[in-house]
Amino acid sequence: MTQLIKARQRIYTDKMALVSEAEGIGRAVLMNHIAQGKIVIPANKNHNCLHPIGIGKGLCVKVNANIGASPKKSCLKEELKKLDVALKAGADTIMDLTVLNDYNLIDEIRRALIAECTAPLGTVPIYQAAVEADGYENLSIDAYLKVFEKHAKDGVDFATVHAGITKKALPLLENRLLGVVSRGGSFLVHWMRKHNKENFLYEHFDKILKIAKEYDITISLGDGLRPGSILDATDKAQVHELKILGRLAERCHDYGVQVMIEGPGHVPLNEIEKNVWLEKEICKGAPFYVLGPLPTDIATGYDHIACAIGGALAAYKGADFLCYVTPKEHIGLPDIDDVRQGVIITKLAVHIADIARGNTNAIARDKKMSEARKNFDWNRMQELSLDPEHFKELRRAECEKNPDIKNIKGCSMCGEYCAMKVYKEI
Amino acid sequence: MTQLIKARQRIYTDKMALVSEAEGIGRAVLMNHIAQGKIVIPANKNHNCLHPIGIGKGLCVKVNANIGASPKKSCLKEELKKLDVALKAGADTIMDLTVLNDYNLIDEIRRALIAECTAPLGTVPIYQAAVEADGYENLSIDAYLKVFEKHAKDGVDFATVHAGITKKALPLLENRLLGVVSRGGSFLVHWMRKHNKENFLYEHFDKILKIAKEYDITISLGDGLRPGSILDATDKAQVHELKILGRLAERCHDYGVQVMIEGPGHVPLNEIEKNVWLEKEICKGAPFYVLGPLPTDIATGYDHIACAIGGALAAYKGADFLCYVTPKEHIGLPDIDDVRQGVIITKLAVHIADIARGNTNAIARDKKMSEARKNFDWNRMQELSLDPEHFKELRRAECEKNPDIKNIKGCSMCGEYCAMKVYKEI
Repeated sequence: MTQLIKARQRIYTDKMALVSEAEGIGRAVLMNHIAQGKIVIPANKNHNCLHPIGIGKGLCVKVNANIGASPKKSCLKEELKKLDVALKAGADTIMDLTVLNDYNLIDEIRRALIAECTAPLGTVPIYQAAVEADGYENLSIDAYLKVFEKHAKDGVDFATVHAGITKKALPLLENRLLGVVSRGGSFLVHWMRKHNKENFLYEHFDKILKIAKEYDITISLGDGLRPGSILDATDKAQVHELKILGRLAERCHDYGVQVMIEGPGHVPLNEIEKNVWLEKEICKGAPFYVLGPLPTDIATGYDHIACAIGGALAAYKGADFLCYVTPKEHIGLPDIDDVRQGVIITKLAVHIADIARGNTNAIARDKKMSEARKNFDWNRMQELSLDPEHFKELRRAECEKNPDIKNIKGCSMCGEYCAMKVYKEI
Repeated sequence: MTQLIKARQRIYTDKMALVSEAEGIGRAVLMNHIAQGKIVIPANKNHNCLHPIGIGKGLCVKVNANIGASPKKSCLKEELKKLDVALKAGADTIMDLTVLNDYNLIDEIRRALIAECTAPLGTVPIYQAAVEADGYENLSIDAYLKVFEKHAKDGVDFATVHAGITKKALPLLENRLLGVVSRGGSFLVHWMRKHNKENFLYEHFDKILKIAKEYDITISLGDGLRPGSILDATDKAQVHELKILGRLAERCHDYGVQVMIEGPGHVPLNEIEKNVWLEKEICKGAPFYVLGPLPTDIATGYDHIACAIGGALAAYKGADFLCYVTPKEHIGLPDIDDVRQGVIITKLAVHIADIARGNTNAIARDKKMSEARKNFDWNRMQELSLDPEHFKELRRAECEKNPDIKNIKGCSMCGEYCAMKVYKEI
């Protein structure tokens, strides 16, 4: 039985108890939200080392870090290192996006990651299915289900399923500046055009649900038509897919499968609130998992920061789960330091959103930080800061440059003219 | 005559013509907004090398970079280098916040900066006045006016004046977590408490206006009581000062002096729109110049990014001018690389806001970027990107690691599985 079915039957699970305790949310409220599909606990029954978390209404906003090998760069050791760095930096979930031409290696990497990953781990099974089918042109529901079930058995907690792109959406793409920028989406659009058939994920969605239910995989309905340019944001193609995702989410709920909805993408700041509102309306409050949003197209090298700007607003307005973006977005694969930077900056965005959403734990942390600042208590400030390691390094460098700042109430920024010092004098 | 008086008399100045051309705003609209005090053109008649810009309604949002020497770190050459780096990175204005115990050196640095600075340059005269008076306790209106006039003669285009903190506000500070965090504000609060007298800037505001009018210095009404913690945001002390700033702005307008309003500070994301609205209401649409806002207190080392998150939202909701914050905020003085980072990240925030405000130039740039991306035109992408130098470096490093990506349509991120490539195949 999935967490959703148990919540409906008023069975309070250990996993729910852990989420309740971590978030300070009452048992009854939590169970209601899970039962209504507004909170998910992605927790595959085979993921043994998992420490479960909740995602959704009334909970603090979560951060996902994408890792994974590619044909250009494949090394299990490096992926394990990325996993470690991402978790230490505070990632709440991990997605393994490995794509390699050797599918045995894909299996090996995924299994090694799951064995080490205490956070929920997600995958995009269509990537491996395309490899196992010897190319995305040859994809089929059978090849897909085989991979999906393998991931399920291995303990994958959530899986992206691009079941919302249908043939009817294809003409809507003609007016787009950037066409399709989701990899899974592009595979399916290519496949539908080539074979002139309906998306097999959409047609055979029940078969996917059956496996998902058995292992309690949370379905993450992919937005294969997410905009790749702010000029394409919230267009007909995107909204067409979202409406289908709403219907598929309902089928998940009816079937007892946990589900969340993936969202854009490149969206100007003035359309972010509307995007969140649309998702919540159309998908009956299912958790919203956004990639960014990225409110400009020109930020290459700084896309993690652009995404933090979009993501903070999205999360404040109701998005529940942010997928990080690294400084290498649009230009290359992230290395270990990019992974760390991506997580830290996205944690910053969600902390800002948590405060704005009235999360008492988040606000309490800022209060303690301000008290420490008032008392010029540098050790306490370090402890409470977003990235204590970085804080320590900066402070050390300042103290080295100006050894006497250790003895004054103030920092090397204002020194004797520190406003807080001057204010306190009388 | 100031630009404000000229606009009221329907005299179209060269400076207005330059702003109209740069912004694509019609002559009549521009003059109306200047006449109503909704746009300022900070342009001291003695700043000879100035290339004037406009700040305010309907214009693209501007970025200020603070530089300046301190007792701990004083070197004219370094300040000139910071100026150069800030302007090259795209800063629209510069503030020289130098505080040194030798006021001749303060003069020397300011004059050297003005001579080199093609952008409007601002100062906070009370810093130097405190030095010339031999300490902030001994400040007086005479010492202040002497410094203010010196700055005016030297060609300073805008000056922060903390005339809105009055004795009545002092009891309102008692409930604050962090008291006063504005340096100018702390000097004045200290002075008022010690002497039990009203703020001399408030009492003698007309004398300041007289000098400002003569040189067409734009008054930037300082927010000496801006919150230093999100827990203090939008509190009684802050709003009390803002109301007085509204009355002082009216006096500036009546006197024919250009004026803008400085704003917070530490403000949670959910209060930013309200802060912008309050300023626009209370100050009759005068340009709003915000420091951040910083929507969390814990981001030491990443405060430039936190500020970009707050600043993008503030600017989207109507703030006209963002003061950058560097990665060293709350911990030390920025070095040259911090200045560059601060400007770039704040430029990112205002670009995102410009798009959301419907600025056609900003949107057109993103459109071109997306077209270049569609065509895998890496040179054009570099040219259009936020920081072409950084883009070039990242691309070079990727090409070095994977020499064959030069020959494929795609980047090293997705390689052969590039969604845009797959999408285009059929």
